[in-house]
Amino acid sequence: MSALVLGHMNPDTDSIISAIAAADLYAKRGFAATPAAQGQPTPETEFVLKKFGLSAPQVVTDVAGKQLYLVDYSDLPQAPQGMDSATILGIVDHHKLGDVTTSTPLEAWIWPVGCTTTVLKSIYDFYCIEIPKNIAGGMLCAILSDTVIFKSPTCTEADKQAVDALAKIAGVADVKALGMEMFKVKSAVEGASMHDLVFRDYKDFDMNGNKVGIGQLEVVDLSILEKVKADLQAEIEKVKSEGRHSVFLLLTDIMKEGSEMLIVSDNPAIVEKAFGVKAEGKSVWLPGVMSRKKQVVPNFEKAFK
Amino acid sequence: MSALVLGHMNPDTDSIISAIAAADLYAKRGFAATPAAQGQPTPETEFVLKKFGLSAPQVVTDVAGKQLYLVDYSDLPQAPQGMDSATILGIVDHHKLGDVTTSTPLEAWIWPVGCTTTVLKSIYDFYCIEIPKNIAGGMLCAILSDTVIFKSPTCTEADKQAVDALAKIAGVADVKALGMEMFKVKSAVEGASMHDLVFRDYKDFDMNGNKVGIGQLEVVDLSILEKVKADLQAEIEKVKSEGRHSVFLLLTDIMKEGSEMLIVSDNPAIVEKAFGVKAEGKSVWLPGVMSRKKQVVPNFEKAFK
Repeated sequence: MSALVLGHMNPDTDSIISAIAAADLYAKRGFAATPAAQGQPTPETEFVLKKFGLSAPQVVTDVAGKQLYLVDYSDLPQAPQGMDSATILGIVDHHKLGDVTTSTPLEAWIWPVGCTTTVLKSIYDFYCIEIPKNIAGGMLCAILSDTVIFKSPTCTEADKQAVDALAKIAGVADVKALGMEMFKVKSAVEGASMHDLVFRDYKDFDMNGNKVGIGQLEVVDLSILEKVKADLQAEIEKVKSEGRHSVFLLLTDIMKEGSEMLIVSDNPAIVEKAFGVKAEGKSVWLPGVMSRKKQVVPNFEKAFK
Repeated sequence: MSALVLGHMNPDTDSIISAIAAADLYAKRGFAATPAAQGQPTPETEFVLKKFGLSAPQVVTDVAGKQLYLVDYSDLPQAPQGMDSATILGIVDHHKLGDVTTSTPLEAWIWPVGCTTTVLKSIYDFYCIEIPKNIAGGMLCAILSDTVIFKSPTCTEADKQAVDALAKIAGVADVKALGMEMFKVKSAVEGASMHDLVFRDYKDFDMNGNKVGIGQLEVVDLSILEKVKADLQAEIEKVKSEGRHSVFLLLTDIMKEGSEMLIVSDNPAIVEKAFGVKAEGKSVWLPGVMSRKKQVVPNFEKAFK
């Protein structure tokens, strides 16, 4: 039975490219593996797949009885249906360790770097396996996406070194230009429903017993979102009403290097407690805040304690 | 602040040597780290430490507020006091993934091999760091101990390769002779209390809501234990009375390659359900069973479901 390699819910570029790269790597190490995803690629990911001639993985939302490798997450709230009866063979990730457990020994590589494909680059090297040119291109874009072209505080020296090496393999001469091209695609909101925009990069967290949703939209210029901001606010209010304590939506300006956060919460004062700045109305500008993982989630977790 | 590198409760040779090796490795990578242990070394571990001129790590039983690297486990029942307020920076392990979680990204290397020091050998190689001769000797012994000199079904090709390489570094000519010398020390029961023997290599598990303790004594000849068997049975009955559903003690004959299991349980029939053999009185002979991790725990977990 071929194992599935599967990233988190609301798959982003890292989640999908990591599934493709890890499946290639496991297969070349002799473990049959097929890439999968818990949803369709976002426009950003579609751009990356097309640019390097890669195919979108099959969509899988139930893994009952299956063998699994997880990429880019290790927590049950981001896992698909059927995890109870699935066998987890391995994890490659770059987040905090979540609540996934296994009943048999597994192979886990979890490093505090900016992107899962940075870890995968090291695993390819460790096993002296050559990275295919098209997969290297995808991996490179995943790092540029997760580190916001090296601007995010999550970016490490290892991510930069991986990009250098992957650019050579993929034949990409101007990495930053490719990154900007990708972020321009990511910035486009035309044609997307508000639901799609909120869930494009969205995660639910359990914060001291409260269900808290945090989404993020990264754009090259916040003015792009000006005309949809009221509709986004209405949409997160709808999402909150489905049993959440709070929903926050980060509108991140990657050039200005900061985020406007849209707020809906049973306790709006939690935002001031978390960030030390008072919200005006239903949103707040957080200068320098680019990373949900490193700057937003830990602050909220402390505030909710 | 120097982080502590800490193995599981009732530390075995792998747990203590892994703490020593990992602390050396982290320090050489630039992360201040000090080896520690949740208890005194067993006679086997003392033999290994003395043989290679290593010192027993400091004993630490409360880690409140500390920075930690975990070695050889990832589950809370085996963790010390104060884990709630400790920061886990990394994990090196070779068991199933337990219920430890973190609030920040960490560095985890968890591989399905026979011994944690086999993983550590690969990390030394990955970072091109030379393994000190005395630590290599300890790591070699940890692998011989955990794999029962390559006889355990947990033993992998990676463990054998690590032993070959470590033996060269440590200057050990006859690996199997060293293993037998170590297991003879491990077999000695003179002077040890029944409590010490039961807890020498003992772990508590949560099996479908039931607290189940499983200990293991490995000897070169079961006859060594003949005269203490009744006292061991009385001791595990005492351990069970402290709020456990069952306590099982494996008396493993490493030459005959099988284990006699002493049984005390609210439901003794669980043993037949797990292993398909009927216990006679309070014990059962399990031919070929050498590994708690690979052969005993998974069978009981299924039986308790």
